[in-house]
Amino acid sequence: MDKEKMAEWLAQGSIAIPKLLLQHYKRLGLTEVEFMLLLHLHAFMGEGVWFPTPDELAERMTLTPAQCMEALRKLLQKGFVSIEEQVDGAILGEKYSLKPLWEKLVHHLISESMNEHKKERQEEEQ
Amino acid sequence: MDKEKMAEWLAQGSIAIPKLLLQHYKRLGLTEVEFMLLLHLHAFMGEGVWFPTPDELAERMTLTPAQCMEALRKLLQKGFVSIEEQVDGAILGEKYSLKPLWEKLVHHLISESMNEHKKERQEEEQ
Amino acid sequence: MDKEKMAEWLAQGSIAIPKLLLQHYKRLGLTEVEFMLLLHLHAFMGEGVWFPTPDELAERMTLTPAQCMEALRKLLQKGFVSIEEQVDGAILGEKYSLKPLWEKLVHHLISESMNEHKKERQEEEQ
Amino acid sequence: MDKEKMAEWLAQGSIAIPKLLLQHYKRLGLTEVEFMLLLHLHAFMGEGVWFPTPDELAERMTLTPAQCMEALRKLLQKGFVSIEEQVDGAILGEKYSLKPLWEKLVHHLISESMNEHKKERQEEEQ
Repeated sequence: MDKEKMAEWLAQGSIAIPKLLLQHYKRLGLTEVEFMLLLHLHAFMGEGVWFPTPDELAERMTLTPAQCMEALRKLLQKGFVSIEEQVDGAILGEKYSLKPLWEKLVHHLISESMNEHKKERQEEEQ
Repeated sequence: MDKEKMAEWLAQGSIAIPKLLLQHYKRLGLTEVEFMLLLHLHAFMGEGVWFPTPDELAERMTLTPAQCMEALRKLLQKGFVSIEEQVDGAILGEKYSLKPLWEKLVHHLISESMNEHKKERQEEEQ
Repeated sequence: MDKEKMAEWLAQGSIAIPKLLLQHYKRLGLTEVEFMLLLHLHAFMGEGVWFPTPDELAERMTLTPAQCMEALRKLLQKGFVSIEEQVDGAILGEKYSLKPLWEKLVHHLISESMNEHKKERQEEEQ
Repeated sequence: MDKEKMAEWLAQGSIAIPKLLLQHYKRLGLTEVEFMLLLHLHAFMGEGVWFPTPDELAERMTLTPAQCMEALRKLLQKGFVSIEEQVDGAILGEKYSLKPLWEKLVHHLISESMNEHKKERQEEEQ
């Protein structure tokens, strides 16, 4: 096992996933497969691939390209992902954005926190 | 939205997943749901819960406790997870270990790298 | 290089640092050495060492134990770290908490965002 | 505090630092300030800024641009960073590479592991 290869592996690095997302995705209405698809999107974008194709995604997942396409369609429809225009040099392209996902998470956390607050007050009043 | 709540959310932190695992889990024979189960195990252990129950896992996943149990059984059988004894103070307990997962990943990376090397040499010889 | 060793290294994992903290620590009044000390505290706590000694910190840093102690004192005084009581089984101990750090960061982000907002409105009014 | 701003903050994400690097940088011959400079380089590159200037680095650090330049020079000289050529579209540019850092870490880990092994054998022989 040569050192250079190992250094290359270390250099690959890691992806950071907020624990809040891991704890709440189910309540946001995401399945495990959808979570993983979002994770792959996130990873691809980190590599500079802003609009991975269903084929590229299927390469890393146990889904077929058609299933990836269908899952992407659903995520777009349910409002977890959006598509934005992007200008890269002279080329006009498209890119995925996970901003809707983070907005949903924040929205969920805030309403959860408000509900807790309300419940506490009701208990105090009794 | 109070600041203290936001600080609490920030304090939760993130979990780091090696990109190598994300790119190769499929080839190791893991499905997306199994990957997520391992991720939850990893997160629980990071919180000091070394042997999360199927109920605790099901709380965060779209699976039922029975499905979590079945998935755990499969991961143990396929050799991605092991159970180790653990002494915590005077209490003897059990804990999950993901060491087998990392060993499988390293094994896979090494054989892949050796195959590439072999292929390169064969092409040179032709 | 044996595989088991490599698997062990992979198993060590990574620590996730919010990019917001990396971009703003200077404005919060932290030096690079103080940032690193906080990072080590965070790492120790992740390993279950809730109250690392100056000696343990100095082991991993280029500071002497006395310098670590002095730096810790300053971080406590400037309100980036606090010490909390902790009950672990029957043992009453102390632990560091980074909650004050996150509160400072949130406070900074909010006032920055409010200043931007104010500036935008002033420009509109002119 | 509006939700959109918070979602933006969450979207910023985190940087993952291998714990091995955090535990061994001192033995590799890095100071805390140098570690932080490497971390900033890493973060900039993750944002697509492959060759941050001393001014850009000084913006986020407590160092002056001149001190950043000097620190970069030293890291290049000590072999923790290298400069590579990069073709981006039609533009030929330069980019920093942290590959030397990972190679140094791997080299250190291997020799440490070999020393331990040697010591164990010597103790067995006695």
